[in-house]
This record gives sequence, C-alpha cells and structure tokens, in this order.
Amino acid sequence: MAIGSHRKVIEPRGRALGIPFDGEPGPLNAITDVAGVEVGHATIIRGDGKLIVGRGPVRTGVTAVLPRGKRDAASVFAGYFSLNGNGEMTGTAWVEESGLLTTPIMITNTHSVGIVRDAVIAWQVRRRKMTQPWSLPVVAETYDGLLNDINGFHVTAKHAHAALESARGGRVAEGCVGGGTGMIGYGWKGGIGTASRRLDRKAGGYTVGVLVQLNCGRPSELTIAGVPIGKELGPGRDPFSTQELGSIIIVAATDAPLMPHQLKRIARRLTMGLARTGSVSGNGSGDLFIAFSTANSESAKRSDVESVKMLRNSRMDPLFTAAVQASEEAIVNALVAARTMVGINGYRVEAIPHDRLVEVIRKYGR
Amino acid sequence: MAIGSHRKVIEPRGRALGIPFDGEPGPLNAITDVAGVEVGHATIIRGDGKLIVGRGPVRTGVTAVLPRGKRDAASVFAGYFSLNGNGEMTGTAWVEESGLLTTPIMITNTHSVGIVRDAVIAWQVRRRKMTQPWSLPVVAETYDGLLNDINGFHVTAKHAHAALESARGGRVAEGCVGGGTGMIGYGWKGGIGTASRRLDRKAGGYTVGVLVQLNCGRPSELTIAGVPIGKELGPGRDPFSTQELGSIIIVAATDAPLMPHQLKRIARRLTMGLARTGSVSGNGSGDLFIAFSTANSESAKRSDVESVKMLRNSRMDPLFTAAVQASEEAIVNALVAARTMVGINGYRVEAIPHDRLVEVIRKYGR
Amino acid sequence: MAIGSHRKVIEPRGRALGIPFDGEPGPLNAITDVAGVEVGHATIIRGDGKLIVGRGPVRTGVTAVLPRGKRDAASVFAGYFSLNGNGEMTGTAWVEESGLLTTPIMITNTHSVGIVRDAVIAWQVRRRKMTQPWSLPVVAETYDGLLNDINGFHVTAKHAHAALESARGGRVAEGCVGGGTGMIGYGWKGGIGTASRRLDRKAGGYTVGVLVQLNCGRPSELTIAGVPIGKELGPGRDPFSTQELGSIIIVAATDAPLMPHQLKRIARRLTMGLARTGSVSGNGSGDLFIAFSTANSESAKRSDVESVKMLRNSRMDPLFTAAVQASEEAIVNALVAARTMVGINGYRVEAIPHDRLVEVIRKYGR
Amino acid sequence: MAIGSHRKVIEPRGRALGIPFDGEPGPLNAITDVAGVEVGHATIIRGDGKLIVGRGPVRTGVTAVLPRGKRDAASVFAGYFSLNGNGEMTGTAWVEESGLLTTPIMITNTHSVGIVRDAVIAWQVRRRKMTQPWSLPVVAETYDGLLNDINGFHVTAKHAHAALESARGGRVAEGCVGGGTGMIGYGWKGGIGTASRRLDRKAGGYTVGVLVQLNCGRPSELTIAGVPIGKELGPGRDPFSTQELGSIIIVAATDAPLMPHQLKRIARRLTMGLARTGSVSGNGSGDLFIAFSTANSESAKRSDVESVKMLRNSRMDPLFTAAVQASEEAIVNALVAARTMVGINGYRVEAIPHDRLVEVIRKYGR
Repeated sequence: MAIGSHRKVIEPRGRALGIPFDGEPGPLNAITDVAGVEVGHATIIRGDGKLIVGRGPVRTGVTAVLPRGKRDAASVFAGYFSLNGNGEMTGTAWVEESGLLTTPIMITNTHSVGIVRDAVIAWQVRRRKMTQPWSLPVVAETYDGLLNDINGFHVTAKHAHAALESARGGRVAEGCVGGGTGMIGYGWKGGIGTASRRLDRKAGGYTVGVLVQLNCGRPSELTIAGVPIGKELGPGRDPFSTQELGSIIIVAATDAPLMPHQLKRIARRLTMGLARTGSVSGNGSGDLFIAFSTANSESAKRSDVESVKMLRNSRMDPLFTAAVQASEEAIVNALVAARTMVGINGYRVEAIPHDRLVEVIRKYGR
Repeated sequence: MAIGSHRKVIEPRGRALGIPFDGEPGPLNAITDVAGVEVGHATIIRGDGKLIVGRGPVRTGVTAVLPRGKRDAASVFAGYFSLNGNGEMTGTAWVEESGLLTTPIMITNTHSVGIVRDAVIAWQVRRRKMTQPWSLPVVAETYDGLLNDINGFHVTAKHAHAALESARGGRVAEGCVGGGTGMIGYGWKGGIGTASRRLDRKAGGYTVGVLVQLNCGRPSELTIAGVPIGKELGPGRDPFSTQELGSIIIVAATDAPLMPHQLKRIARRLTMGLARTGSVSGNGSGDLFIAFSTANSESAKRSDVESVKMLRNSRMDPLFTAAVQASEEAIVNALVAARTMVGINGYRVEAIPHDRLVEVIRKYGR
Repeated sequence: MAIGSHRKVIEPRGRALGIPFDGEPGPLNAITDVAGVEVGHATIIRGDGKLIVGRGPVRTGVTAVLPRGKRDAASVFAGYFSLNGNGEMTGTAWVEESGLLTTPIMITNTHSVGIVRDAVIAWQVRRRKMTQPWSLPVVAETYDGLLNDINGFHVTAKHAHAALESARGGRVAEGCVGGGTGMIGYGWKGGIGTASRRLDRKAGGYTVGVLVQLNCGRPSELTIAGVPIGKELGPGRDPFSTQELGSIIIVAATDAPLMPHQLKRIARRLTMGLARTGSVSGNGSGDLFIAFSTANSESAKRSDVESVKMLRNSRMDPLFTAAVQASEEAIVNALVAARTMVGINGYRVEAIPHDRLVEVIRKYGR
Repeated sequence: MAIGSHRKVIEPRGRALGIPFDGEPGPLNAITDVAGVEVGHATIIRGDGKLIVGRGPVRTGVTAVLPRGKRDAASVFAGYFSLNGNGEMTGTAWVEESGLLTTPIMITNTHSVGIVRDAVIAWQVRRRKMTQPWSLPVVAETYDGLLNDINGFHVTAKHAHAALESARGGRVAEGCVGGGTGMIGYGWKGGIGTASRRLDRKAGGYTVGVLVQLNCGRPSELTIAGVPIGKELGPGRDPFSTQELGSIIIVAATDAPLMPHQLKRIARRLTMGLARTGSVSGNGSGDLFIAFSTANSESAKRSDVESVKMLRNSRMDPLFTAAVQASEEAIVNALVAARTMVGINGYRVEAIPHDRLVEVIRKYGR
C-alpha cells in the first residue's frame, strides 16, 4: 500500500496549462477552499503483468472527503442527485430523508464499496462519532476493472482508515490517487480532480468547492472550454467497444448557508458542469452527485429547535454558476493531473498529452 | 388573433447559417420527423404602446404538440423531469404514475396555463377522446410579461382550440409563434425552436425530435457550438437586472420503443443540451422537460395484458446523444428564427444578429 | 351560487357520535387550530334532474386554504407527496424546488382546476400579493362527475374569489361544501372534513391540522377505528363498477418549525391515515398530499440570509403520529358531516347512516 | 453459525391462531408462492451474557431472496420506495434507473450491509452471473444492536454465501431466523415474516408474495385486524425510551406482468400494509420497500428490442389490495413466529403471547 494524499510531486493543473475557465477560484482552487473540508487518499498500486484474480495487478484506492474534518463529526446539511444510477452511493436514503450527511464521503472502486462502508462504521464506533446508535455511511464508486484486479477485492478496512486518517485541508492530490487510481476519463487516464469558485462580496463571498472521481466519457465526446478536443485528438482510443463502462462521482461543498432542498438544487446543477466536458451520461455510467454545506454548525445541538441560517432562493444563481464552473474545471484537472498507467494484462491508458491539448485549445482561438 | 403554424415565410435556421452541429438530423430537422407527431400554433399579436392591463399590448400564444396527431387520441409512454421547478407543467403526476401521456402537450404563457388546461378538456370531451372519465392535460408555460400584457389574460379557449386544430406534421414554424411569441432567450428574442436526429441503422434507425419554448438564459452565458457568443456579442443586454426571469420547456419525441422509466432518462438528458448553450438553470427559470415515445401504439387495447416492445437499456446511448444534440440545436433554432419584437411600453427585444453570430463562430475556428 | 363556509347549521362530527380516536385534538378539532390558517368555501348547487351538459344539474364548488390568512401573503415552507398520481395538484414543481408554498391551496373538481388556477393569479395581481413577477398557484381536485355536470364547467373565477374572500379562522364547515360538494367516499356521500391534534408540552405543544376533500374508497374497504364498517354495512353500494373513480386531497398544516424536507415527511405520513380508513389507493384515485408550516414567518424578509427555526428530526415522531391520527379523523368527519345528495340524472348518494355506524362500532367493542 | 432456513420445527402463524385476514393466500401463504422465488437464511446465534464487542453475544444473520432462484440469474423488473430513509438498501440507484433488479435481495443487520454486499459480488463472479462487468447488489438492513453485538461485525462473507446457497422454494422459515434473528417488532420479538395472496381468475390469477424483516413499531401502536393489541397488552414494554430504533424492510414479489413504474406503485402500497399494523414510520425507522415481477423472463435476451407483457394500469387494483393485505399478514406472522430471545447483557425480548393475543382479538369481536 502506498498512501500519498499530499505528495511532494505536484501534478500540473488545467489552469496552469492556459486553459481558459470562467469565474474566480479560491486560493487552492480545490474543495478544501471550503473551510473545514479535509481530503485523504489511500492509493494501492501493486504488481504488474498478467491478471491473476486475487493477486493483482492492483491499481485502486480510497478517497475520503470529511465535511468538517476529522475532529468534528457533526453532521452537515446535504442533498443528493442521481443523473444516471448505474452506480452506487450508499447512505443516500438517509441523506434524502434527514437532509443531513452524518458520515464522511468515501469513494472507491465498485466492488469495494461494502468493505469501505463497514470500515467507516468501525472507525466511527472507535471514535464514538455516530449521531445515532447506528451509522449509514456514504460510500460511492466507479469501476476500475480495466486496469485493476477489481474482482480480487484488494481494498481492506485498513485502506479506508488510512484515507480517513490522512485527511487534511490544504492542497489536494489529483490524478491517479485514492479512489481515482485506476480510473479512465474520455479514453485518457482519469482519476481525482478538484476545483473551486469564490463568489464576490456582493454575491455573499461564499466558496463552492468540487471534487470528482472521473471515470466516464467517450473519447470523441471530450470538450474543454468549448473546444472539441476529443475529435481533434483522434478517434480509436475508446476502450469501451460496446458501451461506456465509466462513471463519475461529483462532490460539491459550500459554506453558503443552504438548506437540504437547496443543496439538492446544487447537486442537480453538477450535471451541467459534466455536460460542458462533453458527456451525455451514457447508460453504463453511474453519475451520482452529492452537495453539502458546512454552514449551520450543530455544535450547540442540545436544543430541540435549532436556529439555522438560510440563503434566500433568489440569491442562489451565483452558486449555481460556481458549481457548474467548478465541476467542469475539476474534471479537466483530473485529466491533466493523471499520468499514463499500465495495469492488468499490460493494459495501458495514456495520460492526455498536455502539449497537444494546449495546441488544440489555441487552434480554436481560446 | 393571428394563427400561423405553417407560414409561407420560412425563417432561417441555425444550420443554414453554417453553425456546426453534431449528428444527423431527420429530413425536416424537426420534432415532426417522428412519424405521427403534429404541431400547431396560435399566435396573438395585438396593439402597441403603453401597457393597459386587460387591453394590451398582447404578444403571446399557444403551441400544441400532439404525439399521435389529431386523429389518434391513444396515449403514449412518457417520462418527465424537472430541472428547476420554477414553472408549471400540469398533468405530470399522472405521467409519473401511469407512465402515460394521455393528452396533447400545450405550451403557453405562465398566467394562461389554467384556461388552456380546461380548454383541452373541453376539446377532448367534444371529440370523445378521453382515456378515463376525466382528463389531466399536460400544459406548460414560460413567462412573457416583459413583452406581453400577461396579467390581462388574453389567451382564451379559442386560442387553445386553434392551436390544436391547426396541428399538422411537416415543417414547424419557429421563433415568435405560438407559446413562444413573447419569449426571450439569453437576452435575445426567443421563442419556439425544433430539431431532430436520426440514428443510423446499426443504432436502430430511430428518430429523436425536440421542440423547445426558449425563454431562459443570461446574455453573457450564451454558448453556441462551444463558442462564447454571449461574451463576444457584448454585455449589458440583460433585461433581468436582479435575477433570471426566464424558463425553458423542452419536449422530446422518439419512435424508439422506450418504456416510461427509459423516457425519464431521455428527459433528464435534455439538461445536457441546455447546458451546452450556456445556461446554469437559474433560480427564476422553470426548466421542465417531457419525453414521449410513439412506439407501442395501443390501437388494439382490448386486452388486459398488452404486448409492448422495449429497447434494451444498453442500447440507449445513441438516443441520449441524439436528445442532447437535438435540444442544443432546437435552442439555437429558436434564437435564429426569432425576429426583433416590440412589446408593452415599447419594450424592444432584438433578434440575434445573424451576421455577427456567424462572424464570432468563425473567429473561434468553427 | 350559495356560499356557506360558516353555516349556522352545524353538521355532526365523528367524535360526537362516540367514535373512539387516539390523541388530543385542538379546541376546534380543525385545520384552523393552527394559528393563522383560514378556510373558505364556495358551494354551487343548482338544478335537478336530467343532465344537460352546460346547464346542470350542478353539484360542485371550491375550497380555499390560506396558510397565513387573507391579510398575509408571505410564503410558508411546504412539502408535497403523490401517493397515487391520478390527479392534479398544480404548482408542486415550485413547492418541491423552492420548499415554499407561495399561494393559497385551492381544491375544486377535476375539470375546473384551470379556471381556479388563473383566478388565483388574478386575485393575487389585484392584491399585489405575488412573491415573484409570476405566480404558480397550488390547485388540486377530485372528480365529481357522478353527481355534477362536470363537463359543463360551472365553476367560474367568481367562485374561486368567493372561496378566497370568505376564508376565515374558526369552525370549518364540513361535508357537502366547497370543493367537496359533489364528492363520494367509500360509496357514501363524502366531501370536506377536518381534524387536528395538539401535542403535549413535552413534545413541543405544536398543533397539526388536516383538511381533506374525500372522494375515494371502495364501499367494502371502509374501516373506522379498526372496525370493518364497509363489510358490516353491506355490499352493493359501489358506484364504481369497473374501477375506483375517486381521489383524496389531504392538506396538513402545522405550527411546528419544520423545513421543507421535513414537511415532505409529514406529507408522506398522510398515506398512513388514509390507510387506516381502509383505502389501498386504487389506480383511479388521485391521492395527492401537501403539508406546510406556519412557523418561520418571513415578515422581515429584507435580508439575503434568513434566520429560521428547525425542529430536530429526532423530535418529529409526535408530529408523525398527529398527522396520521388527524388525517384519519378528518376522513371520518367528512363522511359523518355529509348529507344525502341527489345529482345529475337523479343519481343519489346516501349519507352514511349515523345510527348504524355507531351500532357497528359498538358491536366490535369500541 | 447455525444455518436453518428450513427447520423441522414449524413455527405457528397468525392465520392458525384464528386471526382474521382478508383475501385468499397462496398454498404456502409465503413469498415463495410466486413461482421461482427462493429464500435462504443464515442464522448466527452464539454466546450469552455480558457484551464484549467483537466476541458477542451474537444474535444476527442474513436472509436472501432470489427472484428467479439460484439457477437463473436473469434480471427482473423492479421498483423501489423509501417510506422513511433512516436505513440502507444498496443498489437502488440502479433499480430506479434501469427498472431492473439484477442481483438477489439480501437483508442483514445495519452494520453488516457492506460485507454482505461485496460477498454477493464475489458469489456472482464465481458463478459468472453478472449482467454487466460490475455488480450493484441490493442489500438492506435493520438494527439489532439491542440483542446483538452489532459493532462486533460477526457476519462474514460465508454467512452471506450460506444464505444464498441454502435458498429454495417451498415453506419459508419465519421469526428469529436469518437477518431477522435479533430483531424487535412493536416491543415484542420480531424477525422474518411472509405471506401471500392469490387473485381470482377474473383478476388474472396472479400471486403477490411478501417477505418482511420486522424491527419497527412502538408497543402501544400495535394493531392487528383493526384491534388495538398494543394498548390491551399493556404499556411499559418499550425498549426505545427516547425514540424508535427499529426499521422494516418489505420485499414484494409477483408474477403479474408489471413494468418498473408499476412495481414502484406496488412498493408504495406496502406503506398501507404497515400502517394497518399501527406504525407511523417513526424518524428512527428505516422503512425501505422493493417490489419485483418474475414475469417477462429475459431468457432469450439476444435481441436489442425485447417483447414484454404489461398489465394495464386499470387492472392493478386487485394487486394493490393483495400487496396491502399480504404485507399486513407478513408482519403479524413475523411476530407470531418469533420466540423469546435473550441477547447481549442478558437483554430479553419476549415473544408476543399467543393466548393473550387471541383473547384480545376475540374481545373485539373478530
């Protein structure tokens, strides 16, 4: 197991390549720009060559997003949206019902959701951090079976705990890390990406941060800043001969004081950020989104009736714009940060070539 | 009342201007490419000058979409999606419950939904075309109060009946007609637009047609073929100083044999076509979508158990792509077809200038 | 038109007959026990004998529920649930999206929803009581076509306005009044019913009030206080030979400080009150429910961020119980208050016989 | 581990005690009356006395419901409903999206959902029974932490496999078996219960079978056949001093040819069967329901377009009635079959006393 949530080697990012994005990012241009949010990764890369189920090669991991960090287990208001439900996000029945997210959000591979889920409970039990006698963790996934021995079930409770324990604020590792280790996006190497937007004072000065685990999209669909990158970089890279095998999980965080039904509105808008990168959310894609707000801390939760702050609906437009822009940029960041990877049976997925990407962007006057 | 669903003057369309769109349209590039679908408009343009509520000026109308035309009242499978529910589409509880659309789809202005709804019932009663002793018509709306005396309630049952009776297949009038008469899109004159896609034989040869009533979007957001038109054409055109006042209704039709839950999937994808034109679905925008399939005619509906055809989920991707592409193009067609209009109190909304539009598209290498 | 929301003749109620109900009602045992709620009815009874469509006989009306009364148009938090969507409740897309109810709730017959909807807008325009430039009224319905010339469209804007203007607090007329005039419940004469529950101080002292427009249920299903009334009173009273033609609209009000997602939880529980009276929510039944809270007045709505009170989820159980109990009793009250009515073509629907009802209740030891 | 899905000792059932239920059950009065459905249990009872987390005592297990039995992994149409989402049912995003149930349905304790979920995938991988390269198993739960060392995580993949492998048709073990081992219902020992209804030929001759894992309800609420059993058997039995800790999972099966949206309608009606037993679906209760149809076998699934049979909506009422009746009886069967159990720290939950139960039923003339 190699755990590296905060590696020394800083991967490049879309903005640094000169890709034009709208809106003003926060200082880190990451979900951690929302105060209190912590992210941790456990990355598992082991073995090479022929697939022997149960032995490897292994290219997978776990990513943890903690809305209020490791120290504060208080719940946050949250909202959920399923754009295309060919995927799993456990715990959403309770998010929908209660309006609350009461656990960290974990992202891993499709066949390890269960082990991670129960591991979160064990972690909470040990830390006495449950809001009810039981826990209903939120664990999501995408499928890494093209690069990873997914049916070997290599993720263990230890990896889940490592992702949780390594979580912190600050710069977030992107690309082939954590749950994103073995993922593929638009035919290129995908993985974890993040971005943020900060609203101006007039709009409330709120921050919206997004983290994606990118594993979706047909090569020909890829669009960046409105430019048809997929078509320009050429066809024939599609590992999915009959249908899309990917998915995308999008997590949005904000410090704007939004109620659960308003966070559902934010979650639904993440669709539009994804759309800007070209996806049509194929049948095989599990495109599941969750949004939470760190406002309205429950620290003094003794009383039966809580005082909460709520942003008026008519003030939400800048947040919608921010959520769309940040999810678009987070997807691009996942692609730009990822490195070429060789997985099971020598299967190789290339990183998107930065030079050619920039070239095409320029060709289209951007 | 001026009723003109099939005017001699043919308005220009996006494709004719050279705007590049993906995918192959049907012969008419319209929702009527789906066999059996008929469209009718009643357009009401009356008076000029100062607004006197109840007298005008009037810039409004009604558009009718009949899934199987006027002669055949058989129901069709349908699915519904609310992207942003600041709007009305009556009848959707029954669409959701039954999986069926049992009435025409009508689109008008926000404050005339009621009169149109009851008028559809009267029309059905007269024609003995109800599937139950009662009827629950589908009537949607967008707000034309910037150009039209909307609180004057100028739409009457006659207009609804005229839209229904004038419905036919073939070329569909676009722009400032029917329910779209007084609408505004991305700060330019909006209205009705339509487009279609025909899948190749390998993908089943199905057709997807879309019709929109476009009334949404901030000027700066407008994007066409990935090009930031809104920014290039300049700011300051936003009639909505404090918030978006618009909305968009999107109707998708197909002859692919889809079940209700699959049509809901299509309806949800229309979000992604809208996203490609730049909208983030603002708080003030009632963005309500419905999709239906003309396959599975109930003509021999005597038996308790019906035989129906169902496309496998894994074959739906080309339909998703078609729905996204056709909704994007229908929105552009609405803008391109619309003509400058002056409404209440001399309020003027310009048609998007075709020459400058083309110029900007070219500037960005498209 | 006979408008009688507060008739001198007080109809009997279930509790007065000795039917045992659980829980403590408020002083009026009505939805108006929730402070501020006002109810008005417009009742239209005209003509006798043979049905001549457009002339009558007429047995219909309109009921208005104003969450904060006529003077205060401020919106309330609200939640919606469709148990069986063979019905109409307009305006719910906005309730779902915004979490707010911004208009009165109107209930009428199925084919008059449109006229009533637009009439509410006209009323709001006149009173300058809209929260946006447009309005999306909530209007629901059940089908009275067995007693009423429903295809004659006898409800007019005047009736809607009369229901609104006559609204007040205090005792609520039940049975054959307002929207409930021509309705049928479990084969007996149905209509409007109401009830309430007041929680004890330990549970917060909140009130839950319910109003129903009862038009659903097969005769054999009727159950009151657990007693199989329908079976005991004998079969053969079913006017619905092939399928259920009825529906039920249930409105719940509370002064407990509930957020929109919590009100949705209340709305969903109304199912269980209905279930206690024997219904299985037949295919033909439009069973649509809405719940709102009068807490969190927006009177000082200048600021972008509002301070709102929210009851903790873990404190909601007594409200769930109250909502179930009050909806059960409101249904019984609708039956008990209704009087035998003769409608179109001499069609006669009997009031449930109080003496036999009591007899059967006693036979079963209640 | 004691695995006993088909124990020699046959537990008593509600109907045998003389409790009056409406409707005609199938020959087994069990979910297995729906041809092809198989049920298996793995029951884990180990240790006594003081709770030592990780060692026991253990009172838990796993129940498996296989829609088409072990041999046939073909998917079935399915629909899902969350009455109160304080619980987990994994895999429902895909059920909702695809309309299909592609895995067995597993039920266990709250903190073992993960291990069971991944174990189902391993079982499917081994048997090459996946419909996609990945699997999204449906696993539900209720909380047995009052009797069981739930934080000891005693359920293993072996138990899940044992439940799957032991699945068969025929008589279904009820009460303290499988996932129901440590459950509590209305203050009495709960667990697994099942029942069925067979429609008469005129209504299509279809069967509806229900299986519940009963762990919900306040003691005072318990109602059987309309009789207030809870109140009569006396107060003070409530182990849940501050709030309900229970939940109920209800699975409905039918051979009626229903589409996914129609199965959702069935799932929603299970609420009404639960309501008849007195529950108001408390905040702490995870009340999650799923319904599937074994009609429309996919055996010849080569073609892109499938021919499927669909029952008309207007023919669904008898199925609604059957679903309500069977879920009511299955809940009673769970209570009647369960035996007194002593769990962690000597905590004892009594079986409902059959003699007193019958006595009270008779007292109320049933």
